[in-house]
Order: sequence, then structure tokens, then C-alpha cells
Amino acid sequence: MNILAIDTSTSLASIAVAVDDQIVAESLLNTNRTLSARIVPEIERILATAGLTIADIDLFASSIGPGSFTGVRGGVATIQGLALAFAKPCVGFSSLSLLAMNFSHATTRVCPMIDARKSELYAALFDCSSSLPSPLISDCVLPPAALLDQISATTEGAVIFVGDGAVRYHDQIAERMGNRAIFASFPLNNTHAANGIILAQHASKEGRLLEPGQLLPVYLRASDAEINHTSKKLP
Amino acid sequence: MNILAIDTSTSLASIAVAVDDQIVAESLLNTNRTLSARIVPEIERILATAGLTIADIDLFASSIGPGSFTGVRGGVATIQGLALAFAKPCVGFSSLSLLAMNFSHATTRVCPMIDARKSELYAALFDCSSSLPSPLISDCVLPPAALLDQISATTEGAVIFVGDGAVRYHDQIAERMGNRAIFASFPLNNTHAANGIILAQHASKEGRLLEPGQLLPVYLRASDAEINHTSKKLP
Repeated sequence: MNILAIDTSTSLASIAVAVDDQIVAESLLNTNRTLSARIVPEIERILATAGLTIADIDLFASSIGPGSFTGVRGGVATIQGLALAFAKPCVGFSSLSLLAMNFSHATTRVCPMIDARKSELYAALFDCSSSLPSPLISDCVLPPAALLDQISATTEGAVIFVGDGAVRYHDQIAERMGNRAIFASFPLNNTHAANGIILAQHASKEGRLLEPGQLLPVYLRASDAEINHTSKKLP
Repeated sequence: MNILAIDTSTSLASIAVAVDDQIVAESLLNTNRTLSARIVPEIERILATAGLTIADIDLFASSIGPGSFTGVRGGVATIQGLALAFAKPCVGFSSLSLLAMNFSHATTRVCPMIDARKSELYAALFDCSSSLPSPLISDCVLPPAALLDQISATTEGAVIFVGDGAVRYHDQIAERMGNRAIFASFPLNNTHAANGIILAQHASKEGRLLEPGQLLPVYLRASDAEINHTSKKLP
């Protein structure tokens, strides 16, 4: 089975292609403000390096957030469009699970953090000691202090903090968690869509395949546009 | 500091670029029989996606093996050439260390294995529990049975087997090691040059910068050409 997986939830997008149980190409590229113009050409390019075209893909997978609204929307829409055009199924996975997969077989708990702006974090807490991350705190959006309280109530041991949120709130995490805080080396702050292939295979085995129209973003909070729209409707 | 790191020791080459402590682009691509034609254009392409040119790179890094002789030679020669042309330093790192870095903070021992053909493996054993892998068995070339004996003499616990060698000798490893053997999920069988950036930074901090002419491949065994040449010289 040929699988294409993408993650566009942060500014460093990631695209990977697998043929059966082998990664044949992966690309991480900065898509600041250029995602919609760059994602499809980049998908076509990396498929070509592996001697494939989009028509050869059997399963399309995308992270569904949380993360940049524009990024998640663009990634999900791209995968929806490709799956629809080629009449193939698709699957979604959490961007935070994907980030946690950088720590395969780590016995220390892993807290992936994506900067949610407005002094909040998208975050979760995972047990990564087996090949798939197992959630201890599910994907949520919280101010850093409230998140760290919840982590301390959940685990007594050390915690690996990873992602752009961990970089942004490094000092606050270090102050609150002391020597229980481990900060990932910086290449691990980026997701790898190759790990999304594993999440897609797992979803496929569990029968969680979706029609393109069923693949929906998970934003965890309302967008500014929605908030403004709702507030205008109030008397 | 801008760093370019590459690994061409296996058929899936990997190239990464970091600006200060941030990965700005990474590419994994299949280079079967096309490495020499594809590596420099691919380096230029991924630099361009990050708004950089080769002249912007301050430090050039390459894996120096073990692995495919042709691959390692091509990668080292490319980095030597770029460093020489732009009068910048270079550093080398082990392809097996790089593979082990897929298991950051794993408390289980990690055995990276690259198929060395001729019924042998390039392999090592690492403690990956901190951010840099620490060798318990140094890079070596051995038949699988001898390697597994040495691993069993070194550690009593579980061992994560990773790399194309672990795929090729899966059954023999499983039979010999029983439930002590853990096999990596398949995306982890590929190296990520982004982790090589960390190895390059570490080498730089320790003052292990090289002149281009000092960056040398580590093959661990003589090539067929050398063996044939030597045997012809015997009386």
C-alpha cells in the first residue's frame, strides 16, 4: 500500500511517502505564508523523486490539528481534494501525537507543545514507551501555568517538553518543573510526516478510514472570525 | 551559525539545514545509483527553500560511514568539495550514531544495524537515555551471530534493533534474542540528517573541526578493489 502523509500544523510543514513498509521520500520545508502555493507542487515533487505520481497513492493522511488554523485548514483541504479526485480514502491524526512520536520507546513522559498564541498552548501528555504514543492528558488548549499544574497532578516523574511551545515557554517551564523538566534537542521540535504513516496504517487497521468530507480539522478553540461573528450577534 | 548536514551511507540519503538552533529544511530521498547526480542539486534546492545558498553555510557536516562505500565516498567528497570551495570547516559523524539518535531518551539499549552485504552487519550498541548516544559497543562489522553474542555479553535487558540490517536479519535476531528484541517501527530505520546537526554542533563545541582534506570515510573493512589489489600482490 502506498501512503502519503502530511503535517502543516506549524510553519515547518512535513510530507512523507511510504511504499508498503518503507519510507521512500520525506520533506520538511518552511511554508511561512506560502503553504497553499507550495504544498501541492512539493507533494508532486517528492512523489516524482520516488518514481510515483498522486494516482499511485492508496491512502491519503493529514494531521488535523491542533496548530495554525490556516496551516491545518490548508493541509486538510489538500488531502480532502486529492482523496476526492482520486477516489481514495483518507485518515487524520493529531499533530501532538505526531510530535510525541519523535520519542519512540522513551520511558520518560512526553509533553508536546504547540504555541497557540494568546498566551496559550496546544498540548497533551503521552506515554511513549511503546511504538504508538498513549495519551495521559488528551489534546487541549490551556495557559502554560494551568497545563503545568495538570501535568504535575498526572505524573510525578520527569517530563520531556518538545515543540515550538516548549521553546517559547522554556523559562516558565524550567521554573515551575525544576529538574523534572527535560527539553528536547532542537531537531526534535519538528514533526516528521513519516511517523504519520504509522498513525495512518494504525487507523487503517482499525477501520477508521474516512471519506474526504469526513476529514475535519480539530482546532480546539474558536477562530477569531467565529468569535467576532458570535459576539456581533449578541444583543 | 548555519549548518548543512548530509548522510549518504544508505540508499535513502538525508540532507538537513539549520539556521542557529532551528531546522529550516530537511529532505530524505532515494538515491539508488543516482547519488552523485542528485546530491548537489538537492542541497541547492533545499537551501533555496530556506532562502539560503551554499555560500551562507558556516559548517559542513557529513556522515563518514560505515555503510555503502559508494554512498559514503560520494557524501564525504561532496562535503569536502563544498567546504574547500567556500573555505569553511567540516565535521564528520558516524552513520550508526545518527541512526541511534532516532531514539532520543530511550532507556532501552539501541542497536543500529546497516546491512554490510557478505553476510555481515555494520553495527554498534548505544545508551540513548540522554540527548547524545553513548556507545557501549563501538562501530564494528561482524556476522549477525557474532554481533548478537557480543550484545548478550554487554547487556542483559531488552534491545531496540533498527536499520536495514535489522530488517534483513529480523528472523535471526528474533530467534536468538527472544522477547528481549524490540524492532523499530519502519520510519525509524532511516536516518535524519537533522540529528546530524546536533552531532556537528557537539563536534564544533569540542573543537573537532576539520580541514576538508582531513574528513575521511570510515569503511571498517577493505573494499573489494583493495582486497583484489592486495591479493594480486601476494606471491
